[in-house]
Amino acid sequence: MVRCRTLASFSEDVGGTRRTFLSAPMRECHVEISRWLGELGVPAQVDAAGNMRAIYPGIGPAAPRLLLGSHLDTVPNAGAYDGALGVVLAVAVVEALNGRKLPFAIEVVGFSEEEGVRFGTPFIGSRALTGQLDEELLARTDATGISVRKAIQDFGLNPNEIGQAALTDGALAYLEFHIEQGPLLEKLNKPLGVVDRIVGQSRVQLTFTGRASHAGTTPMDMRRDAVAGAAEWITEVERIARAVPGLVATVGSVEVKPGATNVIAGEVRLGLDVRHGVDEIRTRTVNDLVRRADEVADARGLSVDGNIRLNQSAVLMNSFLTDQIEEAIRKTGCEPHHMVSGAGHDAMILAERVPAAMIFLRNPGGISHEPMESVAVRDVAKAIECGIHLLDQLASSPVFQTRTCRA
Amino acid sequence: MVRCRTLASFSEDVGGTRRTFLSAPMRECHVEISRWLGELGVPAQVDAAGNMRAIYPGIGPAAPRLLLGSHLDTVPNAGAYDGALGVVLAVAVVEALNGRKLPFAIEVVGFSEEEGVRFGTPFIGSRALTGQLDEELLARTDATGISVRKAIQDFGLNPNEIGQAALTDGALAYLEFHIEQGPLLEKLNKPLGVVDRIVGQSRVQLTFTGRASHAGTTPMDMRRDAVAGAAEWITEVERIARAVPGLVATVGSVEVKPGATNVIAGEVRLGLDVRHGVDEIRTRTVNDLVRRADEVADARGLSVDGNIRLNQSAVLMNSFLTDQIEEAIRKTGCEPHHMVSGAGHDAMILAERVPAAMIFLRNPGGISHEPMESVAVRDVAKAIECGIHLLDQLASSPVFQTRTCRA
Repeated sequence: MVRCRTLASFSEDVGGTRRTFLSAPMRECHVEISRWLGELGVPAQVDAAGNMRAIYPGIGPAAPRLLLGSHLDTVPNAGAYDGALGVVLAVAVVEALNGRKLPFAIEVVGFSEEEGVRFGTPFIGSRALTGQLDEELLARTDATGISVRKAIQDFGLNPNEIGQAALTDGALAYLEFHIEQGPLLEKLNKPLGVVDRIVGQSRVQLTFTGRASHAGTTPMDMRRDAVAGAAEWITEVERIARAVPGLVATVGSVEVKPGATNVIAGEVRLGLDVRHGVDEIRTRTVNDLVRRADEVADARGLSVDGNIRLNQSAVLMNSFLTDQIEEAIRKTGCEPHHMVSGAGHDAMILAERVPAAMIFLRNPGGISHEPMESVAVRDVAKAIECGIHLLDQLASSPVFQTRTCRA
Repeated sequence: MVRCRTLASFSEDVGGTRRTFLSAPMRECHVEISRWLGELGVPAQVDAAGNMRAIYPGIGPAAPRLLLGSHLDTVPNAGAYDGALGVVLAVAVVEALNGRKLPFAIEVVGFSEEEGVRFGTPFIGSRALTGQLDEELLARTDATGISVRKAIQDFGLNPNEIGQAALTDGALAYLEFHIEQGPLLEKLNKPLGVVDRIVGQSRVQLTFTGRASHAGTTPMDMRRDAVAGAAEWITEVERIARAVPGLVATVGSVEVKPGATNVIAGEVRLGLDVRHGVDEIRTRTVNDLVRRADEVADARGLSVDGNIRLNQSAVLMNSFLTDQIEEAIRKTGCEPHHMVSGAGHDAMILAERVPAAMIFLRNPGGISHEPMESVAVRDVAKAIECGIHLLDQLASSPVFQTRTCRA
């Protein structure tokens, strides 16, 4: 807990935590974590994408590697645990081994970028490990016009060495501890959850168009009010989403034109976010919602235009690993809860190349991405205990070490 | 029609009409209208509030005055008829008298300010006639920091002479022609309407507060979504307003925080506008709507805060004058329609001091305050005819000339 709060003090902002990709406080993080690892005799490096990487050796020089980590960047006005806790726990698990060697090495990873704050593109760090940090991504610029390539150079790294950051055949799997960022485990009174899959996600921009007119002189029955139409549809979004188990649908952005109190709105732009662990259920629901928008618009003499901005598939976690995690959680005396992650994580990117899985920690109030974000000390202790059980299980599993566990 | 389009060409903007209080093109208006009046032998002046005023004399030097006019300022991107048509029609009615004198003078008035665009306060021109252009109003500033007082000076007028702009005991009544700014007369297929009252108006700012949270990780049944609550309430506003004859209720502004597609909104601010000709019905409906907002919020674990920003009473037009207008409209061969004005007008201000009334002209499509705003030539001809009948009626009415018609 102290280590997480120490990392939170490394910030671009005074009085709050904000640590974006390759910012100055990220270097302070690297120095601090290197110090912790140094005490364990584990040397740390920073790869060309700014990821912190430290290998705790296995038995024999040719031992394959299990990756264990999370991300070190944060959103603006962040809490202390999102991302950072997963890196701190990786170090803690290595420390808890107390020098004991396993048939595989453990690579502690602190990803440089997951939140997408600086360049509007998330997972830049983990993409380097899967070989997807390509020229197009390197050319993207931040708000001040600095490219990813330039930011890497400015941090003292060589963007031409990005290729060397990629996973090699020795990589066995990726495991990540992360706070839930939601209220479910707390509601169920369970400290730890095993993530079976990461939701797929659709984003749709909808525009209802009516006719702007005078709020005083246009009778109720002669209006083509875009706000009234949008409101009716938003209530339908909620009703339809509630009827589909496990689905979440959100209208989080609403822009009204002209937007004056005394003018009936002629146009409303809405942003819809729909997520579910099963792609077919998600896409069917999106279609239902868009059809319902058409019906609402038709009945009111409005038009509606829908524009799909994102259509991202759900990602399955590796079932061998999730079974092992379930067993490891049980060994801590806790009842595991299998769950779907509603948010994207580095594990989603890594899963494209290696078996990957996640363990969620109970997150009081479901509060994340803000200073009030917290986690209980006893749950962190359970997570470390779970991690050790998991490593021991994997160490005694020939299936795992030959990577035949891949789904 | 040509005269209205000429006035519309005097604009602060290239390619559109925008003529705010005491702007340079307002002077061009004054010069042009003075020219028309000059051809009729009627001298025009500009009072200290920037109102154009021209007296067509009555029989005898002590004849009382009937005021006839509207406003010369416009909204940005305006049409050619809102306001300007009422001034052009006043000149046209005087012209149609063809030199014939009545027992009362006719004062043609072109008000300098009605829309409230430049100083955020409407009716500055007519307030000078009712003695309400006080020091507080003179001290208000526009977006560039110029006060009303300074704007008056910059236009070459003397703000210390504002008092002389006030109505004297010789003022009999105020009459105003104006486009309807709504679709009712067109729907009823009637060229002219007589305004019985101008609606009262309430404006309420409501803020629904919930809890901002992650759109992916917060299940539907654990949300405190301010957008969903606001949407439910907006549909209720529409339902409740439709059940009250003659009432209009509008939510024209909606602001969402944080306003990101992937974040459940923690706060929504809404602007509600409610209007009705009967104050008691309006205030009762506002109370119903605010109570309903409380209920919606309670059921969702939200809070709601309502803030009444405007509570303006309805204004009755003078019944003697509206009876006379009804009769004058009938004489043109048209069926009069008694109606409520959903918008504020100079007549509302003048009614505080003298009997006042308005005649509405059919407004195709109800389109006003934009370049497509229009009026039919034949309806304008009917308006002039109605104006002459009305003057003749009033000329033969001893009741009117002694001002005992005051309600």
